[in-house]
Amino acid sequence: MQEIERKFLLKNNSFKEEAYASYSIQQAYLNSHKERTTRIRITGEEAFITVKGKSSKSGLSRFEWEKNIPVAEAEELLQLCEPGKIEKTRYLIKVGKHTFEVDEFYKDNEGLTVAEVELSSETEQVKLPDWLGEEVTGDKRYYNSYLVQNPYKSWKE
Amino acid sequence: MQEIERKFLLKNNSFKEEAYASYSIQQAYLNSHKERTTRIRITGEEAFITVKGKSSKSGLSRFEWEKNIPVAEAEELLQLCEPGKIEKTRYLIKVGKHTFEVDEFYKDNEGLTVAEVELSSETEQVKLPDWLGEEVTGDKRYYNSYLVQNPYKSWKE
Repeated sequence: MQEIERKFLLKNNSFKEEAYASYSIQQAYLNSHKERTTRIRITGEEAFITVKGKSSKSGLSRFEWEKNIPVAEAEELLQLCEPGKIEKTRYLIKVGKHTFEVDEFYKDNEGLTVAEVELSSETEQVKLPDWLGEEVTGDKRYYNSYLVQNPYKSWKE
Repeated sequence: MQEIERKFLLKNNSFKEEAYASYSIQQAYLNSHKERTTRIRITGEEAFITVKGKSSKSGLSRFEWEKNIPVAEAEELLQLCEPGKIEKTRYLIKVGKHTFEVDEFYKDNEGLTVAEVELSSETEQVKLPDWLGEEVTGDKRYYNSYLVQNPYKSWKE
């Protein structure tokens, strides 16, 4: 299937007061090639293997395939992944009929916070909450697969 | 889990008379990196996603993780793979208590035939049928993931 989403930086941390849930995520990549990525993710008691293609020209949509896998198997697969595990907390915030996912990164990506909202079509309208900052949809620097090899802390260097 | 296996070239085609089954396989790689590979395989009505690590020092054993997936999803994933699909027919031959899998390759790997036998330990003894040729266990040129980028037909060049 195709995943269609918009991505934003944040103006401030006020989204945290509006979050109805949060959970920690650890993930790494079996391959972080720009044409296709294969990700292993553990979130609490669930784990997934996810394959993504590259973005459409608009930067909005991208092939995505995902499968639930046992956490114990995901832990083994994480060992095999490319170096550079991503660790972050995800906050869920309901805004109108959409759910914004805000990821606050740790470790080598400390200081980075990114909001995403999934759309059902490229032209769907979304109400944008006032804590959103600059839109970075399609900017490959904010791909998690890019952050593995180019962590946020190294950007200013 | 760990996959332990020995690999051989073939002296002749007499294995075909002893085969109790054969089926065609098409497969390609989401990544064919030497440290880790992610393979999509379709065999008849079944499909799999398989992750392998690199070989142990002996060349005999290798981490392997595999999951059954729907054929329709595998067909989509094959589209996304690295260029260079592998097509082959696999023959199954019972020899004593072991099953030899013999792969006859087509297309860019035409002319190559390789036999494999899976072991339960690195020291397990195997009865070797007389149609087996040189042992190539641990020789990375015979990895299917190597053949994607270096097909057999290009070896003589």
